[in-house]
Amino acid sequence: MRVGVLGARGKVGSEVCRAVEGAEDLALVAAIDQGDPIDALVSEGAQVVVDFTHPDVVMDSLEFCIDHGIHAVVGTTGFDPNRLDVLGGWLGSSPATGVLIAPNFSIGAILMMRFAAVAAPFYESVEIVELHHPDKADAPSGTARRTAELVAAARREAGSPPVPDATSTSLEGARGAVVDGIHIHGLRIRGLVAHQEVVLGGAGETLTIRHDSLDRVSFTPGVLTGVRQIADHPGLTVGLEHFLDL
Amino acid sequence: MRVGVLGARGKVGSEVCRAVEGAEDLALVAAIDQGDPIDALVSEGAQVVVDFTHPDVVMDSLEFCIDHGIHAVVGTTGFDPNRLDVLGGWLGSSPATGVLIAPNFSIGAILMMRFAAVAAPFYESVEIVELHHPDKADAPSGTARRTAELVAAARREAGSPPVPDATSTSLEGARGAVVDGIHIHGLRIRGLVAHQEVVLGGAGETLTIRHDSLDRVSFTPGVLTGVRQIADHPGLTVGLEHFLDL
Amino acid sequence: MRVGVLGARGKVGSEVCRAVEGAEDLALVAAIDQGDPIDALVSEGAQVVVDFTHPDVVMDSLEFCIDHGIHAVVGTTGFDPNRLDVLGGWLGSSPATGVLIAPNFSIGAILMMRFAAVAAPFYESVEIVELHHPDKADAPSGTARRTAELVAAARREAGSPPVPDATSTSLEGARGAVVDGIHIHGLRIRGLVAHQEVVLGGAGETLTIRHDSLDRVSFTPGVLTGVRQIADHPGLTVGLEHFLDL
Amino acid sequence: MRVGVLGARGKVGSEVCRAVEGAEDLALVAAIDQGDPIDALVSEGAQVVVDFTHPDVVMDSLEFCIDHGIHAVVGTTGFDPNRLDVLGGWLGSSPATGVLIAPNFSIGAILMMRFAAVAAPFYESVEIVELHHPDKADAPSGTARRTAELVAAARREAGSPPVPDATSTSLEGARGAVVDGIHIHGLRIRGLVAHQEVVLGGAGETLTIRHDSLDRVSFTPGVLTGVRQIADHPGLTVGLEHFLDL
Repeated sequence: MRVGVLGARGKVGSEVCRAVEGAEDLALVAAIDQGDPIDALVSEGAQVVVDFTHPDVVMDSLEFCIDHGIHAVVGTTGFDPNRLDVLGGWLGSSPATGVLIAPNFSIGAILMMRFAAVAAPFYESVEIVELHHPDKADAPSGTARRTAELVAAARREAGSPPVPDATSTSLEGARGAVVDGIHIHGLRIRGLVAHQEVVLGGAGETLTIRHDSLDRVSFTPGVLTGVRQIADHPGLTVGLEHFLDL
Repeated sequence: MRVGVLGARGKVGSEVCRAVEGAEDLALVAAIDQGDPIDALVSEGAQVVVDFTHPDVVMDSLEFCIDHGIHAVVGTTGFDPNRLDVLGGWLGSSPATGVLIAPNFSIGAILMMRFAAVAAPFYESVEIVELHHPDKADAPSGTARRTAELVAAARREAGSPPVPDATSTSLEGARGAVVDGIHIHGLRIRGLVAHQEVVLGGAGETLTIRHDSLDRVSFTPGVLTGVRQIADHPGLTVGLEHFLDL
Repeated sequence: MRVGVLGARGKVGSEVCRAVEGAEDLALVAAIDQGDPIDALVSEGAQVVVDFTHPDVVMDSLEFCIDHGIHAVVGTTGFDPNRLDVLGGWLGSSPATGVLIAPNFSIGAILMMRFAAVAAPFYESVEIVELHHPDKADAPSGTARRTAELVAAARREAGSPPVPDATSTSLEGARGAVVDGIHIHGLRIRGLVAHQEVVLGGAGETLTIRHDSLDRVSFTPGVLTGVRQIADHPGLTVGLEHFLDL
Repeated sequence: MRVGVLGARGKVGSEVCRAVEGAEDLALVAAIDQGDPIDALVSEGAQVVVDFTHPDVVMDSLEFCIDHGIHAVVGTTGFDPNRLDVLGGWLGSSPATGVLIAPNFSIGAILMMRFAAVAAPFYESVEIVELHHPDKADAPSGTARRTAELVAAARREAGSPPVPDATSTSLEGARGAVVDGIHIHGLRIRGLVAHQEVVLGGAGETLTIRHDSLDRVSFTPGVLTGVRQIADHPGLTVGLEHFLDL
């Protein structure tokens, strides 16, 4: 499969280029960044484009790709419902073309969230611990909040009662933050990168699901999964989880 | 729901009795052990029976239950294909009755195996660590072997390559036992009960799924799940996983 | 060594009796509880007494023991500076007798606290996670608070700077409780007993020290250590750590 | 303090240069590699030299440093007893000069080994799990073997019995490799760097000490500790642990 990369000289894009070059079934035919002509995608016969650029330019690039029947795997941020509507309109005129918009390409993070949501209704208790380097500005992490929402939704749907907690005297903050009824604890430790643990427990047993992201290359397998499957998913897809057979 | 327990004075059966009594939606109507008349199941109007007894007596009990249209949730061992065939025949004459035969009622162990098999094709590497008390006679544990088989099957089906391993000089045993191409490591530590960790890894990230069984009561939620759902699953079911919405 | 137990029918005392009986080098010569005559300690020739009773009666028992030159290993609570002074006075008249007062007999908890304090000055970051069953009333646990104090003291003495933390936007509680500048996170999970993890981190590495208490018998090795060593430690000792060669 | 680096353009040496430059109390005055004149150490007034070079050249460099009263912190390998004798002789003529030879500059690894050895006599069971990337050639790791030796020595000295193990039927390798009576298990997982866990257990409790090395910079704090303390340790020291107040 012939692959083009937009944002090829960026931190993420350059890792994507390396990963595409390293894959036997993929060929990197166009590595494009600011100032390079996008037409190279067509002249080089790209079948799929990977876009890690900027919200200001991504819509123009996608319009070009869809017009030319080139599938797109997009990690650029900023897709609100309005933008998704516009994309849907363009894809209506090019029904064989696929576009994947994914906020998170880490397969491990997706599996962790999925498994946590599946397991949550079977347990009385569930809490989330996220651990990051101490230069991170927000707490808890976006992934931890998202996990809490998914876990809470799964429990609501299953009719699970609230998690038990007899705490009556507590130092402020000791029981963490609470998102949708789920407690989240954020650690900031030098040496760590991005880690999360979901701890579930019932009578006499616990189940722990832990994801450790140790290096930024961890998103590349997810991008390659998107590249390899996008041709089989025409139309608009939001979230890499829809390409994983879970 | 009216529940009878066979093997009610045994180590497992007595825990089941306690759990049934503690559940608001269940009533323990017959606690039967060796020497007690099984007819009490009928006179007390049991709708479901839980059987943790002995291979020598379980078939007679099940014949009685199926004859009387009482569903059965069975943790007794010794069910070979021949016995399952016999059960199937009996159930043919009582098509509304359900029998669940389960080698493992730990929901956590079932979830761990399931998640490991789902995740395995997404990762280059996967290994299993099982940790038990040092009085255990066999290594690796049956659950670890079963997990390895399920993981290996999932990878075969997905066309995954063998796990990478550049070990060229090794002390005997350093890389563990190998079951179906998957490495298993067994620790024996005083103070532990029954624990297992499946470690999966790809470029820059790992996913770890850990199950800790700290107390024998950990099987009771699985038994109660069986009791609550058996009426909706007429016929023969082997494995509690078929009752869990995974 | 001939051992007597005071509070022998209590939850803790009965475990101590079992442990003494199971030890080859120890003999249980007197198992005494409320209403039993304490003189049996003398008539049976007890050399060491273990006391898990009540603050209301423990001082009378200790006066009796010290008078008769019987060493004492004490887990009963309620020893304020005043009581320790009184004990010191009595021991002055019986200089060969030893009394150990210990708030915590878990050797694992003592080692964890010690190792955390030793390691803390070598790392930029350190945080504490404590995990308990959800029926616990207070958060964080006393052991976690004590660990934080010991870690903070070790860092102050070494001139360590405050732990780094760039958090600027946070949900309330997300970064845990803060004791002496150290963040503590308390999880409450059904199925757990009493667990604590101290996570330390510096450039490119982390060190984690975890203590899992899975069963109440975990304090008995500490009690037996006290029993075996008390004769070599005449006078008053507060804290089992002084008997461990750390 | 004025610091020179030998092997300054190597993978390790260049990280050392960066770390020295980043430390407020240290100044990098000479960054020397193959072909550069070593005399710059003298002309630039280096007080301490860090040497990460090659066994073929390290002895000449150290002779030069000791002759000129420059302390040395050495990570280069290949120091057999014979070489250490020669160094001792040279240092005899320059008694105020200090030389530190260290096979391992990771403070975390040193703490882990130390804590494991201190804790081992208090527990019935102890086993080691080491986890590395799958390109590693040897199993178990050198650090795991060294930990086993230290743990075994501590137990021998304390008169501890062998670790309990009732395994009677086992797949080959299931119980790991055995070094000095201690079981070691080696995992090889893509995405990991270098990790080790020591699991100790006794009645009802376990203690786990885990070291995660996530990035090669993790050795630099140990090198800087050596640099800062070498002037206070004249003569020959083997092993960074002697500079840590444990």
